[in-house]
Amino acid sequence: MKVLIVYAHENPASFNGAMKDLAVEVLTGQGHEVQVSDLYAQGFNPVAGKHDFTELSGAEFYKYQAEQVAAGERGTFAADVRAEMDKLLWADLVIFQFPMWWFHLPAILKGWMDRVLASGFAYGNGQMFDRGKLAGKRAICAITTGGPAAFYPDLAESLKPIMFGILYFTGMQVLPPFGAHAPVQADDAARAGMLAAYRERLEQLAATEPVKYPTMAEMGMG
Amino acid sequence: MKVLIVYAHENPASFNGAMKDLAVEVLTGQGHEVQVSDLYAQGFNPVAGKHDFTELSGAEFYKYQAEQVAAGERGTFAADVRAEMDKLLWADLVIFQFPMWWFHLPAILKGWMDRVLASGFAYGNGQMFDRGKLAGKRAICAITTGGPAAFYPDLAESLKPIMFGILYFTGMQVLPPFGAHAPVQADDAARAGMLAAYRERLEQLAATEPVKYPTMAEMGMG
Repeated sequence: MKVLIVYAHENPASFNGAMKDLAVEVLTGQGHEVQVSDLYAQGFNPVAGKHDFTELSGAEFYKYQAEQVAAGERGTFAADVRAEMDKLLWADLVIFQFPMWWFHLPAILKGWMDRVLASGFAYGNGQMFDRGKLAGKRAICAITTGGPAAFYPDLAESLKPIMFGILYFTGMQVLPPFGAHAPVQADDAARAGMLAAYRERLEQLAATEPVKYPTMAEMGMG
Repeated sequence: MKVLIVYAHENPASFNGAMKDLAVEVLTGQGHEVQVSDLYAQGFNPVAGKHDFTELSGAEFYKYQAEQVAAGERGTFAADVRAEMDKLLWADLVIFQFPMWWFHLPAILKGWMDRVLASGFAYGNGQMFDRGKLAGKRAICAITTGGPAAFYPDLAESLKPIMFGILYFTGMQVLPPFGAHAPVQADDAARAGMLAAYRERLEQLAATEPVKYPTMAEMGMG
């Protein structure tokens, strides 16, 4: 497999950093190719705007999503957006490694979604969900939480706005998430246990079944 | 009332811009005081990081949320974060004006939540939901969507991760949201109708009842 890890943590010594390093080690050890988008280290700009394009379409009314469509047709995405798109197109599997903040993505990773999963590139013209433009790829959320596991009795449900509303919307098949709960409050043995559990998940990734979400037809969307 | 409008759109000529301008006009016309945080115009940085603090706490392990707590105690938040906190503390009512992107906040506004609604400032030490540190304030989401109204049969439910999971978590009472659906595809008359409906909502804001969310006690959280 070709695996892209999109990693959103400031501190390389964090538990998120340890999970990212472990994923690189296990997956390369299995013979997969791995690339990492280290958003903090790259200084990734999460703000969507005119700087996403090397030139504008010339439309009378500037609308960001319309410019995304035009940029896809004209090849005028800015280099930082294009680089992430290229890695995404290359990948068979994408691991999103992040701490849950406000039950959602840290802004730096939300902005990756806003800018890279562009209209016309990841979805558009009726192409979404099972017909999304990234169909054939798989994705998994590998996260940490601040609160204990009891706060997240069904992690896939807590992450549904991301797993279903963003990733599956683009056509990606989404694997069950992996969560490490409150690692900062755990002792070394507990943290080692979390990493061992993640290692086991990583070793089985290639054979893991995605979460079953309805098709457009099943949702009555034609 | 003292009203803060946190506004997250790049284009002043957008429908979001028109809604923001209308809110300023109506609320000042009613005698309220209004401040606007224009995140794009301010060049607001949504990325949480060490730059949020004028100095670090000196803790052996750098953890962002712990640094937030320390910065609140020591008065060491960076100027851009402090400025937003001051406006928030000043306000009785906060209007969040934004386009829904990926069923959630644009990254520039998600980062405002990550950085400004800091641990120790907006919540912490068991102070959350009805006991949150921003209790007594009210908030409303005023949004635009790309899709038609039929995609959002219950807008308060679509926005629950923001309304309940973020705003109410800090103690704010959250008013029913206002949504303008697919204004970019509407004709001028339809857009004028949306603005007329928003004007009516704005005129009644002071008397609007918040959405009823459970208290910590009702959620079994002691």
